[in-house]
Formats: sequence, C-alpha cells, structure tokens
Amino acid sequence: MVQKLPFSQIHVQWFIEFLGHANVSQNLNDLDSVSRDYTEDLSFLPDLLLIPSNTEQLSKILEYCNNHDIPVYTRGAGTGLSGACLPVNGGVVISMKRFNKILNLDIENFQVTVESGLVNAELKEYLKPYGLTYPPDPASMGSSTIGGNISHGAGGPKAVKYGTTRDYVLNLEVVLPTGEIIWTGANTLKNSTGFSLTHLMIGSEGLLGIVTKAVLKLIPLKTEELLMLAAFSDASKAAACVNSILINGFEPAGIELMEVSGVEIAMDFLKIPFPKPITTEFYLLIILDGNNIDDLNQTAEYLYPFLEESGAIEVYLPNNSEMASDWWKIRRSLGELVKQQSVYKEEDTVVPRSKLPELLNGVKEIGNKYGFRSVCYGHAGDGNLHVNILKDQMSEDHWQIEVPKGIIEIFELCKTLGGTISGEHGIGLVQAPFLKIVLDDIHFNIMKGIKHSFDPKGILNPGKWL
Amino acid sequence: MVQKLPFSQIHVQWFIEFLGHANVSQNLNDLDSVSRDYTEDLSFLPDLLLIPSNTEQLSKILEYCNNHDIPVYTRGAGTGLSGACLPVNGGVVISMKRFNKILNLDIENFQVTVESGLVNAELKEYLKPYGLTYPPDPASMGSSTIGGNISHGAGGPKAVKYGTTRDYVLNLEVVLPTGEIIWTGANTLKNSTGFSLTHLMIGSEGLLGIVTKAVLKLIPLKTEELLMLAAFSDASKAAACVNSILINGFEPAGIELMEVSGVEIAMDFLKIPFPKPITTEFYLLIILDGNNIDDLNQTAEYLYPFLEESGAIEVYLPNNSEMASDWWKIRRSLGELVKQQSVYKEEDTVVPRSKLPELLNGVKEIGNKYGFRSVCYGHAGDGNLHVNILKDQMSEDHWQIEVPKGIIEIFELCKTLGGTISGEHGIGLVQAPFLKIVLDDIHFNIMKGIKHSFDPKGILNPGKWL
Repeated sequence: MVQKLPFSQIHVQWFIEFLGHANVSQNLNDLDSVSRDYTEDLSFLPDLLLIPSNTEQLSKILEYCNNHDIPVYTRGAGTGLSGACLPVNGGVVISMKRFNKILNLDIENFQVTVESGLVNAELKEYLKPYGLTYPPDPASMGSSTIGGNISHGAGGPKAVKYGTTRDYVLNLEVVLPTGEIIWTGANTLKNSTGFSLTHLMIGSEGLLGIVTKAVLKLIPLKTEELLMLAAFSDASKAAACVNSILINGFEPAGIELMEVSGVEIAMDFLKIPFPKPITTEFYLLIILDGNNIDDLNQTAEYLYPFLEESGAIEVYLPNNSEMASDWWKIRRSLGELVKQQSVYKEEDTVVPRSKLPELLNGVKEIGNKYGFRSVCYGHAGDGNLHVNILKDQMSEDHWQIEVPKGIIEIFELCKTLGGTISGEHGIGLVQAPFLKIVLDDIHFNIMKGIKHSFDPKGILNPGKWL
Repeated sequence: MVQKLPFSQIHVQWFIEFLGHANVSQNLNDLDSVSRDYTEDLSFLPDLLLIPSNTEQLSKILEYCNNHDIPVYTRGAGTGLSGACLPVNGGVVISMKRFNKILNLDIENFQVTVESGLVNAELKEYLKPYGLTYPPDPASMGSSTIGGNISHGAGGPKAVKYGTTRDYVLNLEVVLPTGEIIWTGANTLKNSTGFSLTHLMIGSEGLLGIVTKAVLKLIPLKTEELLMLAAFSDASKAAACVNSILINGFEPAGIELMEVSGVEIAMDFLKIPFPKPITTEFYLLIILDGNNIDDLNQTAEYLYPFLEESGAIEVYLPNNSEMASDWWKIRRSLGELVKQQSVYKEEDTVVPRSKLPELLNGVKEIGNKYGFRSVCYGHAGDGNLHVNILKDQMSEDHWQIEVPKGIIEIFELCKTLGGTISGEHGIGLVQAPFLKIVLDDIHFNIMKGIKHSFDPKGILNPGKWL
C-alpha cells in the first residue's frame, strides 16, 4: 500500500517541466477545489493537481508516479456520491477535464469515440441533430463525465428501458499504472475474445487504470416523451403498480419513486405546485417515450386502468410541456434539496424491484430504532432506492456511532432481500466499511488479485476499499 | 501449468467412493463421448469422466483435484465451436448434465434461477406459459446449456435487438478451484458493488471457476414473428441495407446474412424450395417480432421501400407459417450442412457492421490467394460473420500450412476494420494461436494475473489460451 509521505519538490519540478506551469498546481485554492466531490461533507487535500491533455502525457505521468510510489487519484467532474475520487492519501489528483473531445462519430455503426473527460450531457446534445443518443442518464449528467460514469457503472432514471452505462461501452483505451496503454476490447457489438477487461473496468472506480477514451454504443433518439404521475397511500401499492406495469408488457423508459416528504421540500424550494391528494405517501413518475405523441397518449390510456387497479389514489398527466418540465425539475432536484436540509448520509440501496416495500418499511423501522429520519426516492423500476438519512438536530456522537449501526442493518436487509449495497453510486470511501456485509473474504481476495494484476504497486486510488 | 501424468488409480478410487460407481467412468465409450465437441475434427480423450449432481459435490471434487494437480475440464452439452471444453491434457472431464434444474421462477422480478447444465431451449419452453422469455438464442439452443452459453458469451440471431448472454446474467454461483463457493453479484438489475466478477465469468471459458447456478433476467415474450427475405447481387448492397434498416429506426429482432452457395447446399439437402433470383449472391433474412401481427405486417410494408432502395433484387414474405418455418430451417441448418460437405475450419469473425462488405470481399480475396473456398453466413445486424473454410480436395500439407496463413490474414483484416477474432464462439483451442493478433503482451499478462487470482495452480482447462 502506498503511504502518504511528505511530497518532494523534486516531483513537483519534474511535473512542471513535463506539463508546464499552467497544468500543475500546488495552489491551495486549486487543491481545495479537488478535495471534495458530492459525497456528504468529506474533504481531503491532495499534494498536487495535474491537468494533462492527452493519453501520452498521462502515460508518462503514471510511469513517473509508479516509479516513485506516488498515490494517484483520477478526477472527472467530481460529482460522485461515494467519495471514490477523493485523495485520502494525498499525492496527485489527475484532472481529466482536458480530455473533453468527441473524436469520431460513426453514424453507420451507431458508435462514437470520445475522450473520457467529456460531459455526458454534451455528448447527448452533440448527437441530437444526428437522431442518435447515448442513453445513460445519471442525475449528474449535466456535469458528470463519461469516464466518471464508466468508473461507477452509473445508471439513471431511464435504466429501466435502456440499461446502465455498462450496456453502452464497447471498447476502452486505458492507461495502466506502469504507463502502458491498452484497448480493452473491439469496436463491435459482440466480443468473445478473452476475459472482458472492458466490463472489468466498468465500475472499477479508478483502482485498475485510467480510462482515456471510450467507444460507446448509440441508439436512435426517441423524439417524444410523456409523463404520468400517480399518487399512492403506501409503498406496497406503489411497488405492486411497478410490477403491474412491467408484467403487462408496457415498456416505460423510467418509473421513479418519490417519498412525499422529499417532494414537499422540493415544492417549497422551487415554488412549483405539485398535485397532492391528502393521503399521499409516495409518488410514481412514469416516463413513456417514443416517436409519436399520439401513440404515447394511447399507451397512457391503456396504462391508466392498471394504475387504478394497483390502488393509485389519483393519476395525473401534465397539462403542457412546462408542467412536464416542472415535474422533472422536482424529481431531478429532489436529492440535492433534501440534502440541503441537513448534514446527511446517502445510501444507494438496491433490491429486486418487488422487494421495494419490504426495503422501504425496513428503512423506516430501522430509523425508528436508531433515531434517524430518512427521505427516500429513486428508481423503482430497477429496485434502486436512494435513502437519505438526515442528521437534523442529532448529537455528533449519535450520528457517528448509532447511525452507522442502523446503516449496517439497512444493508443487511438489502442482502437478505437478494440485493446489495450499491446500485449505481459505487463503493468509494463511504460504503467501504460496509462492503464485507455483501462480499466475503474469498471474493475480496480475488478482487485483490485482480487489482494486483493491473496495479502491482497499488498507486491507483489507495486508501479505498482494496 | 498442470501437465499430463499417468492417472493414478488412487484418484479413481477416491472419486468412486465419493460419487458412486454410476457417476465415475473410465469406460472408453464414455470417455470417447466427451472427447469431442462440435469443433472441426478434434478429439482428446480424458482419463476420467465425473458426473456430480450438486454444488457441494463439485466443491469437494475441485478441492481434491486442486490438491492433487489434476487437470479439470468442464463440459456442458459439448456443442462449442472453439474446442474450449476439450480435455487436451487428459485429467477429468466434469459433465454438468445433472445440473439441469430450474430452481426458482420469480415472475414479479422477471428473474429465474437455474442450474448451469439446463438446456437453453428447455428454459425457453418452461417460460412460455408465463409469457416470459430468456432471449439469447444461439444456433445450438436446442441442446446447448446455460452454463456453456455463459462460458462463451453466446449470441444468436436475435442479439441485434436483445443482446447476447451477457445482457441477461445477473448473478452466478461459482465453484472455485479450491472448492470455495461464491456468488458473484446480486439478484438486481443494477450493481455497482466492487469489480464485476459476474461479467468476468461471462466468456471465461472454464478457466476461472465452474458456474453451478445462474440468476437470469427475463423479458416479456413476444408472441408474433414475421420474416422478410431480401436477395442481393452483392455484399455491399446487403450491408448498406442493414444500415438503412437500423438507421431509419426499425428494430428488427434479427438480420441474418446467408451466402447463396450455402443456401443452395441447404436447399438441396432439406429439399426445401427457396426463392432465388438469377443474380443472387447474398440473402438477408429479416426477423420482425411483436405482439400484434397486423403491426408487423405494417412494419414490413414501411420497411419495403428501404430494402428496394438499398438495391434488393427481390423481397419476399412467406405465404404461410410452414414457409416461414422452412426458411428458419434453411438458416439454422446452414452451418451444419455446409460443414458436412468437407473437413472445414470455421472462423467467428466480427467487425463493426458497416465493414461487413470489406470483410466479405477480403475473405474471398484471401481465399483466392491461399487457394481455399469459403461459405459465409451469420449475423449481419451485429457484424458477426461465420466464415467456413472447406478443405475439399486440398492436400493435408496445404490445409495445415497454407490455410492458417490465410486465416491470419483474415483476422488481421478484422482487427484493421475495428473488429476482433471471435464474436460469440470464444477462443478455446482453435483460435488460441491467433489471439496475439488482437491482444498484446500487456493484455495477456493482465489476463494471466486474473487467472492466477482464481486458479493459482492452473488446474482449470489447462492447455488452452492461458
């Protein structure tokens, strides 16, 4: 394991000579700006910030760091929710912000080759005029990078229909800690040629290598979208409704779950009115997409009786596109606004989707037992529930000692229900203490062996879960 | 590396005592029956055949083999096309045929848990009454097993719309060479919890562990299917047609390519008439699926002008379901019937789909240069082309020395076109000499490290590509 040592000015000089003054910083403001991501209130200062602009530079940097045992933390946009990019052992942070180019759009093969620092939404915008899209849509997509998405196996609301980042990565250029450069696969839809290093890199959180380029699979863009909102008096009915929708052959792009307490916070802050029958405890926001709005309206009509039968108190369609956009705003800002209420811990629980009521009820019971309030929302169609635990007026001792006991129980419940501790945020720093709940020693030893095959000196992202 | 040594009768006795006489065989007929798969004319006799029936037995067997350096080859149905299961170093073959149970159908979550020796088509049949299906459809699905499909990352015609085996595996029970048992993931649609050992196992060809159970993702079954057949005078027009179909937003379940020489062989043998305009060189068989036959007919009508514009000589729809079934018969038996013509080598080339004409033309040119005839067919929608090279009257010397030079050139062409050497058959034995064309030493070293993490003594599938 690479340990934190006083950072040598000899290293600093080497980096400055190699990258130029403008791309190397020891300035405290700069270091502070890369000391945090979106994970709770965590902050770790690195010794140095490097901003390379191409694979060859990055290769030399890693070779140097490997030769000198310097910890390396790769940073995309810093929107991660598990702390995976945080430089807990100091060393260098490598910002990928200059790897932001779209290198090749291959329309005939529905493929695009991009640099890993490209922002997800910028790629989507670029593709629109071509009638193509890259579906993964994490809440952070306006600022998060393709490389960050790959490193976390990011999902998003539309994963129900379109899958997650994993389903769209065909081939990756990766710089290994030794500075060696590999392509992990081929630019093909099918590949049975050796162990899939492509899929091993996806979700590997900067522990195995640094992704510099990605060949991504695209699909034709759907031009129309229709939202339906259903209010429920309890979680079981909402979850039964999700199953009813899917088992009856409907293919919504997304089915989002929102707890009423979270929606109220967002309504108040955004000053957006939102339908709320008296007994509402949970909402489902159902996203239909296609190329013909009449077809979508017809689907909504077909869908309506299934929602009613599942016990929806009321079902709403937006009156106009502004209202639809407002509903999206509520959903998309929910997480951030809930977290502004208080210091918080966010858990990214995931279970088979029919188990959501058990998980939700369990979370509330555990909250009562350990004295914490939680606000839940997430991707009901995938069984992926974000649990925000709020500190409120709790004592620091209670927060640090009692709440983690409750989190352990929540994760144990996930495991019991056939699920696991992260659906799309990753393990990073904050879930690391809980990883052994779901993975045993044998599993860890294999992962350590894999890590060693890529990064024998352990310079990449030290101090995390391996 | 585990070497072949004279097989000790002490081992045989141990296995008999542990598994019972009925499940251990040294009988030459039995050993002969597991000495081959569907790969060319290869045959290797093991020392012993073992037929365990549950994970715990298998765990003990592996522990014993690991302790005594006994080579272990896992065998599903033996329908592989790369020789991955062949016991090239002798030792034991473990037949998975008794791992054939469906353990749990979870309708609410569209999941099924099965043992790995279950036959693919049996699962599909079982699911039909529930309105669900497991989409991967390799040509071998009538006899090949789920475990074999997973080990090869198997595809099939409908991968265009539904993806390959990889897209339907959620979680795997795996027995490691030490006898330890792990589950690789969780029963969830999303999972960002550590390196994905699930995806690492997919396509790992029995080199890392033995899959005993799989949790598979299901989707609602489509009840209707409509075939369209288009004849083309050259490969470029057929390939342009594939792109035209997909880029215009159609979502066929499959788009199959058949070279006329192969279709003629199948027509003759099966005595099935098949439309053939005079200048036909290639066919596309387009598979539309859905839940409403009127919709499919309408889609076929919309599709028709695009086929015509792409230069189809003629477009046919089957007159009735018998004719549709005959067309499927032609496509599905093509491979086997072509291969009955002569000793052959089959290559499982894959490129970005728009590069198919360049690949096809290249294959023919290389054939002329090295003096061999080839018959091509495959999954045009995925750029996955099966190239059958026929020995015909060629001398053994020419076959063994000149033809492999041509194969190297074919694979080098695949690489140049952005593709690789196997789309769905795997590397196994016959592609092993060519793997270095697409993967460099760094890539190999990482794969060796991974192998070592799972199988430090190298008892699993020795003598193959790692």
